[in-house]
Amino acid sequence: MGSFFGDKIRISVFGESHGTAMGVIIDGLPAGEEIDMNEVYVQMQRRAPGGDKTATPRKEADFPEVLSGMLNGKTTGAPLAAVIHNTNTRSSDYGNLISSPRPGHADYTAYLKYGGCNDIRGGGHFSGRLTANIVFAGAAARQILKRKGITIAAHIYSIGNAYDTPFEPCGITDELTDKLNKSKFALVNDDCENSMREVVEAARLDGDSVGGIIECIIQGMPKGVGDPMFNGVENVISAAVFGVPAVKGIEFGSGFSGTLKRGSENNDEFYYDEQGNIRTYTNNHGGALGGITSGMPIIFRAAVKPTPSVSVEQKTVNLQTGENTTVVVKGRHDPCIVPRAVPVIEAAAAIAVINVL
Amino acid sequence: MGSFFGDKIRISVFGESHGTAMGVIIDGLPAGEEIDMNEVYVQMQRRAPGGDKTATPRKEADFPEVLSGMLNGKTTGAPLAAVIHNTNTRSSDYGNLISSPRPGHADYTAYLKYGGCNDIRGGGHFSGRLTANIVFAGAAARQILKRKGITIAAHIYSIGNAYDTPFEPCGITDELTDKLNKSKFALVNDDCENSMREVVEAARLDGDSVGGIIECIIQGMPKGVGDPMFNGVENVISAAVFGVPAVKGIEFGSGFSGTLKRGSENNDEFYYDEQGNIRTYTNNHGGALGGITSGMPIIFRAAVKPTPSVSVEQKTVNLQTGENTTVVVKGRHDPCIVPRAVPVIEAAAAIAVINVL
Amino acid sequence: MGSFFGDKIRISVFGESHGTAMGVIIDGLPAGEEIDMNEVYVQMQRRAPGGDKTATPRKEADFPEVLSGMLNGKTTGAPLAAVIHNTNTRSSDYGNLISSPRPGHADYTAYLKYGGCNDIRGGGHFSGRLTANIVFAGAAARQILKRKGITIAAHIYSIGNAYDTPFEPCGITDELTDKLNKSKFALVNDDCENSMREVVEAARLDGDSVGGIIECIIQGMPKGVGDPMFNGVENVISAAVFGVPAVKGIEFGSGFSGTLKRGSENNDEFYYDEQGNIRTYTNNHGGALGGITSGMPIIFRAAVKPTPSVSVEQKTVNLQTGENTTVVVKGRHDPCIVPRAVPVIEAAAAIAVINVL
Amino acid sequence: MGSFFGDKIRISVFGESHGTAMGVIIDGLPAGEEIDMNEVYVQMQRRAPGGDKTATPRKEADFPEVLSGMLNGKTTGAPLAAVIHNTNTRSSDYGNLISSPRPGHADYTAYLKYGGCNDIRGGGHFSGRLTANIVFAGAAARQILKRKGITIAAHIYSIGNAYDTPFEPCGITDELTDKLNKSKFALVNDDCENSMREVVEAARLDGDSVGGIIECIIQGMPKGVGDPMFNGVENVISAAVFGVPAVKGIEFGSGFSGTLKRGSENNDEFYYDEQGNIRTYTNNHGGALGGITSGMPIIFRAAVKPTPSVSVEQKTVNLQTGENTTVVVKGRHDPCIVPRAVPVIEAAAAIAVINVL
Repeated sequence: MGSFFGDKIRISVFGESHGTAMGVIIDGLPAGEEIDMNEVYVQMQRRAPGGDKTATPRKEADFPEVLSGMLNGKTTGAPLAAVIHNTNTRSSDYGNLISSPRPGHADYTAYLKYGGCNDIRGGGHFSGRLTANIVFAGAAARQILKRKGITIAAHIYSIGNAYDTPFEPCGITDELTDKLNKSKFALVNDDCENSMREVVEAARLDGDSVGGIIECIIQGMPKGVGDPMFNGVENVISAAVFGVPAVKGIEFGSGFSGTLKRGSENNDEFYYDEQGNIRTYTNNHGGALGGITSGMPIIFRAAVKPTPSVSVEQKTVNLQTGENTTVVVKGRHDPCIVPRAVPVIEAAAAIAVINVL
Repeated sequence: MGSFFGDKIRISVFGESHGTAMGVIIDGLPAGEEIDMNEVYVQMQRRAPGGDKTATPRKEADFPEVLSGMLNGKTTGAPLAAVIHNTNTRSSDYGNLISSPRPGHADYTAYLKYGGCNDIRGGGHFSGRLTANIVFAGAAARQILKRKGITIAAHIYSIGNAYDTPFEPCGITDELTDKLNKSKFALVNDDCENSMREVVEAARLDGDSVGGIIECIIQGMPKGVGDPMFNGVENVISAAVFGVPAVKGIEFGSGFSGTLKRGSENNDEFYYDEQGNIRTYTNNHGGALGGITSGMPIIFRAAVKPTPSVSVEQKTVNLQTGENTTVVVKGRHDPCIVPRAVPVIEAAAAIAVINVL
Repeated sequence: MGSFFGDKIRISVFGESHGTAMGVIIDGLPAGEEIDMNEVYVQMQRRAPGGDKTATPRKEADFPEVLSGMLNGKTTGAPLAAVIHNTNTRSSDYGNLISSPRPGHADYTAYLKYGGCNDIRGGGHFSGRLTANIVFAGAAARQILKRKGITIAAHIYSIGNAYDTPFEPCGITDELTDKLNKSKFALVNDDCENSMREVVEAARLDGDSVGGIIECIIQGMPKGVGDPMFNGVENVISAAVFGVPAVKGIEFGSGFSGTLKRGSENNDEFYYDEQGNIRTYTNNHGGALGGITSGMPIIFRAAVKPTPSVSVEQKTVNLQTGENTTVVVKGRHDPCIVPRAVPVIEAAAAIAVINVL
Repeated sequence: MGSFFGDKIRISVFGESHGTAMGVIIDGLPAGEEIDMNEVYVQMQRRAPGGDKTATPRKEADFPEVLSGMLNGKTTGAPLAAVIHNTNTRSSDYGNLISSPRPGHADYTAYLKYGGCNDIRGGGHFSGRLTANIVFAGAAARQILKRKGITIAAHIYSIGNAYDTPFEPCGITDELTDKLNKSKFALVNDDCENSMREVVEAARLDGDSVGGIIECIIQGMPKGVGDPMFNGVENVISAAVFGVPAVKGIEFGSGFSGTLKRGSENNDEFYYDEQGNIRTYTNNHGGALGGITSGMPIIFRAAVKPTPSVSVEQKTVNLQTGENTTVVVKGRHDPCIVPRAVPVIEAAAAIAVINVL
């Protein structure tokens, strides 16, 4: 068991890459919340494969069908369920015998766990396609959060060794949030796009792939939420974010680089601002102390490994014959999923945040 | 709510730094498991403040008292409960009014959450002392895990900019595991101790503190455990490890540095070893693909921020008067908790692992 | 949040009576389990409205569509998801304003909870139709349980004051189990059918309804399963069974009538049978002592209230005008849902049992 | 795992009858709630063995010691933990080999589950003594609930075939609630005491025991709480109440007797009362429709089986020799625990209710 998340608003994801359909149930949303499906669609388009330019308006074809929980554009309080039909299924007599697990994919571990009964086509339940369901759930959650004043934005912090300007840790403008929330190649500083694209293109030409880091900021969180020890905001956010395939690390605030600072430097000093609000001058704590929100933005960075699908010949084993062999992953590969992973990280943050409020 | 962890073996921690006692319940351990209390004591000594030399044999004074769940040295199947009495409580008429929250501590966020009703003495429920309970639970869990062939070891990967030799990602020897499991300053390469101690001493002389990185390896995990998406081994381990105060980041396998690699380089190629076992040549995936164990060691690194308790004057606010002010944290401070955090990280890993089996 | 059940095998139900579709996700089923869809269909037919004679073979029309988790007739390990499309939806501009809540229905409490945003058509998420999803999940679970030697059977213990022969508490034959598992009017003693039908017919002629009691037996449970105190088999089964609308009571073993016995009489004495198995002469404990299975059959009875839909004029309030008024529930009503509730109770028992193993 | 309850306010119970101590953690209580320990003591005295007259004021000896979560009489927000020390432990070299399981006790099933490693002395973790922890947790919860206007009262509905006057289903007076909340033999009509005592005395003289039914009413619940299907108030209350040893049945509202009514009779008609509140004329639904509160009192009855400890010779098996034998349970037995179970049922209701708010 595993494809569900949350103690308050529960997200249950189902589906396999080449199955009939995939989908998601979101149980526990309050009733009467307006969900703008065009806005949901924008988020889903940002994740969709294809052109990575600005998200386009709604096309019906690949849009999730809401089966329950919505009436006249508002949540009814019943579980919100949506399915995304697969227009791409292949014949069911497709051989399901895995021979050579692809390095870096879940082929081998799924084979271990499911004894070869899992649907291996397209990666089955482990396919990156499944993240569309997380984006759907997150998009619904984000509209509810936004009405509470909570916004979530992420950008491509790096691709390989090409870096964007980091977020200002103490907060970003609404304009930047809005720009990023619509973008398919989300950057603080658009001038960095070229250098990143060069890194990607170089990998593509080699039949290879590159990874990167996504930085995410959550602003407007109420102060004093999160629980101590094992259920703080960091625990909950990390548990959600590691649900995004390819994420191999997460850090909050100054994170790993904070280990190079002195305590006096890493501590964030408090002050009353002009409106009498308590703030910190810096935000090395990333918005949470003792697992509880301070009112400063929550900031985290997630490491996204280079896509394992590469056209390079790689060593592997033949599970049927028990011999060492090699594999070349067929098909056209996306040499860098980092831009498309940005809305998925935002969505994972959203389903985490709505569960700690 | 928050100070509990686990769906299978549930850990519930209670206590406040200067309260009567603190303790832990471990519900769900199998019956008939022998728990060697001397071995538990060794782990607790590794975490205890004081000398950081090799852990000493059991002293009764500060040892947890087992209240239930053990009979004749074996678990009974009933919840295993232990309390650690506090010999250090102060008078209950101690003023509980917080005036100036210490930067980097949970003073301010606890004040926000609990409206000033929390026990602020010594940090209350947020005190690092509470990690003794995690170590107790982890020590019990580790003995059970060890009988299943699963061992857990961690070392000080870095303190500030002083580094130990990293773990060999594809596995370490039992000798190294044993050495680390007993050490109060756990290093792969003991020659690195001096440079680390210099970093700590320099901070101490400045009344300041330093942080570091702890690397942890889990060997002998059965293959094919962990669940997809939100309940994989990375999700569960990270949710446990962020329960250790001061942890601000976690990465598995090549983690953040993997984002600088090409896919072909970061992918771990499979092969049959001489015994016919499937292994990978490298271990950039850190033991889990798609959240499921591959049979390679689980490797992660956790970033531990510099202790916020420093003798340096810092800016803060006075919550009573509403004015900006400064604070100097009184008392003798531990300038670096990283060595003592090593057994806590191992324990957090243990309570995570016993929950995914 | 609420329409999910289980800590090990998680059942998530969605849908509204007149929505696009309803369905269920079953997360955590082992991979490689064969699920015979014809057998699933038999169970769903037993619950379906219409004739209450023996269940008929599969018709495609109203059958659930499996969207994920199955390949070539076997579970894949991914969440098993099925939807039942609604051929009966009405226009979405249907007025959603509730005026007069029907006595005994959830109309009023749903209005309270969801502030009038819930889909009231046909009872929305509270419709008895939703139990089809429970039956689907239970039917899948029962096939897996059966391969472990665990069978579940229920019968109509009573309708109004007409009673069937109770189960032999120490166990029933496989023949009886098989007969009941196929029947749409499940009785131990078929001679009791006439008197029950007379009770139902009398109510029908009055435009009224009747309730009854369903008795359920679970045989072949492994010994020693269930957890103490709050997670014993009775806790888990009751939590599942109260998920079936109209259930207002449950008792295990001698239950309420056991309160009229002396302890010496209600205690079940142990003995070794001829095969050397420990059994009890009687089964007043209903298969569980201290929440843990004894190896004797689990027996429980569930009280099903008379269907609230009646053609009789009843007093109610007008929520729009704030005045007292009356209501007559329109449409043709099923005067007794007890026979159709039998497979739902079996299914609820199945999803409980698969969660305590 | 099992001795915990709740998703919002989590109750974790530990202890064994003859162990060092038993206790409970209540995690998630809001901070700043005053807990009057004298009032807690009154509830614990009602459950304590000994005289069953009106509860007496606090004696320190057997009172639970609060270890964390309280400061100056108020909750701090940290887990509230209390232990009850055992003054009655016996030597640890006590033979732990079970020979002849007592009929009706959990001896045999605990032996099955724990393989003979459980602490059998006094019933171990299954002892009725453990309910003291439930009463402690419930007493704390009830004080918080009372400040929200929610009161809980129970009475001895029956002992054997001797009955008290049932609760008025649409509500009882505050005076009756107060009387019952202090009583050790809680009755609506005190004239029924003699006939009940006669039933108990007759059993006692025979070395036997009797059971009974406890009726419980929860008033002042906010309208519209509870979740549909598997997490309604009935599901949650029943899961808590079956945590009380000896409970073998539960029914809400008209419960089992409602199956003998017509729908038109069992339905509760709505009306506006003089204050403009919507109420029902009757309360056959017991306060919840579709799992959600209607604003009418929640009413349930729990069947408590006759205590299995009887002085009568009973057949059992010898687990060591594999032979049939007999057993006589030694010691002085309480021939009827129903009066002492009343505050336990109230407490179980309290920990359920505080989890659905």
